Amino acid sequence: MKLYNYFRSSAAYRVRIALALKGLPYDYLSVHLGKGRQYDADFGAVSPQNLVPVLELDDGQRLVQSLAIIEYLDETRPQPALLPSDPIGRARVRSLAQSIACEIHPINNLRVLNYLTKTLGVSDDQRLAWYRHWVLTGFQALEARLAGESRTGTCCHGDEPGLADICLVPQVANARRFAVDLDAFPTIVRIDAHCRSLLAFQQAAPENQPDSE
Amino acid sequence: MKLYNYFRSSAAYRVRIALALKGLPYDYLSVHLGKGRQYDADFGAVSPQNLVPVLELDDGQRLVQSLAIIEYLDETRPQPALLPSDPIGRARVRSLAQSIACEIHPINNLRVLNYLTKTLGVSDDQRLAWYRHWVLTGFQALEARLAGESRTGTCCHGDEPGLADICLVPQVANARRFAVDLDAFPTIVRIDAHCRSLLAFQQAAPENQPDSE
Repeated sequence: MKLYNYFRSSAAYRVRIALALKGLPYDYLSVHLGKGRQYDADFGAVSPQNLVPVLELDDGQRLVQSLAIIEYLDETRPQPALLPSDPIGRARVRSLAQSIACEIHPINNLRVLNYLTKTLGVSDDQRLAWYRHWVLTGFQALEARLAGESRTGTCCHGDEPGLADICLVPQVANARRFAVDLDAFPTIVRIDAHCRSLLAFQQAAPENQPDSE
Repeated sequence: MKLYNYFRSSAAYRVRIALALKGLPYDYLSVHLGKGRQYDADFGAVSPQNLVPVLELDDGQRLVQSLAIIEYLDETRPQPALLPSDPIGRARVRSLAQSIACEIHPINNLRVLNYLTKTLGVSDDQRLAWYRHWVLTGFQALEARLAGESRTGTCCHGDEPGLADICLVPQVANARRFAVDLDAFPTIVRIDAHCRSLLAFQQAAPENQPDSE
């Protein structure tokens, strides 16, 4: 398999964690988002949305959207499982993952921040406040769930890492990069620290990728 | 079952379509987003994220996040199926759904538009341009996929409505409400028209809900 990738893309980071947890090797194809390489014609042919990650299978088929890719990997390489076996548990884990992937991350994506700056002319301070606002709003709700729900364990759901942790760790890394104060989120911080102690999360970390700067 | 709902919420609209396709009855509990009722304390106890939809099961358990709710319904009430049976097909349908639910909708959500206006002080014209920009960006990529991929049929994937159509129709409704020009998206327009001709989509439509204005 090949993964169109960028060390700092948190959606790509999610897929890297999933691949590492399942012990699947892949070729790392770097698309430098910082230099706008996702808009090059050759990558546009790979990904009409100009987004990484894209997972290219050995038969040439290409999969997009990080959560869809991870569910595909979990269906075709079931061990270790990234979702619980019971439907209520699966709904819980998917909803935790989506509370990051649908409620926090898209609003703070690079292209959105660029629109704020370049088209709307907001200041650097306003841009930073925007970023922090959506992380704090999302993390407040997520912390309430993780702290209050009985199925939270060492990880978001029980004691084995899964789809929710795969979304959580890259989002916490982004929050730290933008110096968001995480003191109000002890459960998030605890789970993030535990996951980052695991080898698969370390292998997938931005600073350990070949295009890391 | 009970669905915390709002006629104009496109995430709630998705779940209403899924419930209607599967013929599942439910109680409609209106949370008036236009009046900010999602921030009332009693609803905050139901949904820490202050978001609709919330599906309350007969045993009192509550599920959040529209895509997670729909996958739960599909796992527990399998007919008619909202996802294909093959993993590659499932990945395709999930990625189409997520290209709307993770790339378009969150950036144009009411709370984001309110932040633009109230905190950043952008004009009504700038707010409208923002809205249209993200719909057009997302629909260009989606149209390219739907028009170019062989598994597109009368619906997004084959000839039976599923998870991708469930996300598409509410997003097209929103685009029309903001007068986005859809001429460049003939495949999207065709699939939307077909789906809206089906009874389940009509039952779920905003204008047919009890709290519609």
